[in-house]
Amino acid sequence: MHSIAEFKQIVEVELKKLSFNSSPKDLYDPIVYMLGLDAKRLRPIALLCGNELFGGDYKKAMMPALGIEVFHNFTLMHDDIMDNAPLRRSNQTVHTRWNSNVAILSGDTMFVKSCQLMLMTEVESIRPVMELFHKTAVEVCEGQQLDMDFESRKDVSIADYIEMITFKTAVLLAASMKIGALIAGAPPADATHLYEFGKHIGIAFQLKDDLLDVFGDDKKFGKLKGGDIVANKKTFLLLEALALAQNENLEELNKWINAPAFDAIQKVNAVTAIYEKLNIKHLTELEMDKHFNAAISHFNSIDVAAPAKQTLLEMAERLMVREV
Amino acid sequence: MHSIAEFKQIVEVELKKLSFNSSPKDLYDPIVYMLGLDAKRLRPIALLCGNELFGGDYKKAMMPALGIEVFHNFTLMHDDIMDNAPLRRSNQTVHTRWNSNVAILSGDTMFVKSCQLMLMTEVESIRPVMELFHKTAVEVCEGQQLDMDFESRKDVSIADYIEMITFKTAVLLAASMKIGALIAGAPPADATHLYEFGKHIGIAFQLKDDLLDVFGDDKKFGKLKGGDIVANKKTFLLLEALALAQNENLEELNKWINAPAFDAIQKVNAVTAIYEKLNIKHLTELEMDKHFNAAISHFNSIDVAAPAKQTLLEMAERLMVREV
Repeated sequence: MHSIAEFKQIVEVELKKLSFNSSPKDLYDPIVYMLGLDAKRLRPIALLCGNELFGGDYKKAMMPALGIEVFHNFTLMHDDIMDNAPLRRSNQTVHTRWNSNVAILSGDTMFVKSCQLMLMTEVESIRPVMELFHKTAVEVCEGQQLDMDFESRKDVSIADYIEMITFKTAVLLAASMKIGALIAGAPPADATHLYEFGKHIGIAFQLKDDLLDVFGDDKKFGKLKGGDIVANKKTFLLLEALALAQNENLEELNKWINAPAFDAIQKVNAVTAIYEKLNIKHLTELEMDKHFNAAISHFNSIDVAAPAKQTLLEMAERLMVREV
Repeated sequence: MHSIAEFKQIVEVELKKLSFNSSPKDLYDPIVYMLGLDAKRLRPIALLCGNELFGGDYKKAMMPALGIEVFHNFTLMHDDIMDNAPLRRSNQTVHTRWNSNVAILSGDTMFVKSCQLMLMTEVESIRPVMELFHKTAVEVCEGQQLDMDFESRKDVSIADYIEMITFKTAVLLAASMKIGALIAGAPPADATHLYEFGKHIGIAFQLKDDLLDVFGDDKKFGKLKGGDIVANKKTFLLLEALALAQNENLEELNKWINAPAFDAIQKVNAVTAIYEKLNIKHLTELEMDKHFNAAISHFNSIDVAAPAKQTLLEMAERLMVREV
């Protein structure tokens, strides 16, 4: 059994070994740049853990694990263009450092590379692995489109939001774990429980992310507090507040949302105060707990002895306190 | 055996049957729009012909054939953003009708869809088919990057140009034919000859395209004559002219290339006159013939009886006169 830290190190070493053509430079330099930025490598580690859970030899799951990481970075490269984001992992985004065309085409190339790596598995698991990978890739695109649609929609429900983060964030973690399981030849029912475990952990993780934007420790989180509030981002917190607020609370919330100009710190403080009045932090934690418990329930249903389960359980717990 | 026209009709019917989710609308509407535009369906037809050449049942190659067409349209959707093109097949491009973000993400989704379709083949050909498909996809990205690089490069040679069009245009036609052959279980040597046939036809086809921009019949070609000249596009014709021109011809050519402002019709007429003086039309036709002959030589080496070869030969000939 490998620990999270051991798998992290292995993934970093293997990622560095990936070879790309040196030319055309504007196609390949951004890929090497993007993959070289500090990252948690959560998804490839999850894939390797899912594989080892069912007695797999991690070396046989290594290329698909790298494929998941390359795929994830492809989605980030394209999302950053669409979201007009200047920074990624405290560094310039590819479309800022080069330009949008470079980020489009390097991203496309990364996607192909991820497919090539994913295909490097034993012949008997190729079809189920590739089918799950492609299905997940479509869902991730749908999640990103829903997220963009939400910006202009006035009728986003909590259920819509959970669906969006499920597609945009959670299914890739779920698929990573399940692909590892498929490569190890896990029984279908167990592989499905592992997928559901990963999905609910992914949802809870995103809710935690929403919460930290408002109630997090600035230094630990590494982002400016309240960025979502400033941008009127329809997070679980805002949607829940809009659903619960009445009278003067609702009026004030709408005033800040619709203000054409405002002082950012004043807005963050005012909206946070409304969240506190409405007990939004607690309600978000309840929703997180609901998904964490669903995850654990599926995890407990996996028919594998407890010691082999230790690493994935630790990963889930660390994700909840955001120390991974 | 099916004719080109029969396969064209089958491809159109099957393409219309492809089902996409209805939501999110901005993700799927552009895909349906793009696939609905009038098109030659050259690549899927080539795939089906390559399959039938070796006695394959076209139904088993149908989904990969659609996959090639979806892939091709994905590359067009992204290329149109990068090239800032307003029109595609006489209709608005996706990024013009919707916006760039929509074209990026719908394109990504089409790419995944093409992988899903390509995977729908018999288990014994999955690996060779997917490996060739992925390799080709990377080359197509490299070709597009080289094409963009050429815009600002001053040192593009004829060899560089042939490499660029090989990657950007020819390898996808070559791969289409070979994938058809692989699905039919063709002997490796024959499959390679078919690939080379498609590649050289693809190169000759692109050279013909360059030629038609300057010397074509406006109505038949459906584009404004001389568009490449106006844009200083480094086509075979311009590169050959720059390599051959001396003294006043070279001076005048450079004057038009570097002119910050000009009358488009004057420029087209003047550069065309230089091409005529330097015999560029004939030289381009010689290069086309070279590749056409190389193609036919590979085609003749394929160990299949002549009658089965008729359709692909007809396709090659029709491509050379641009009637397909």
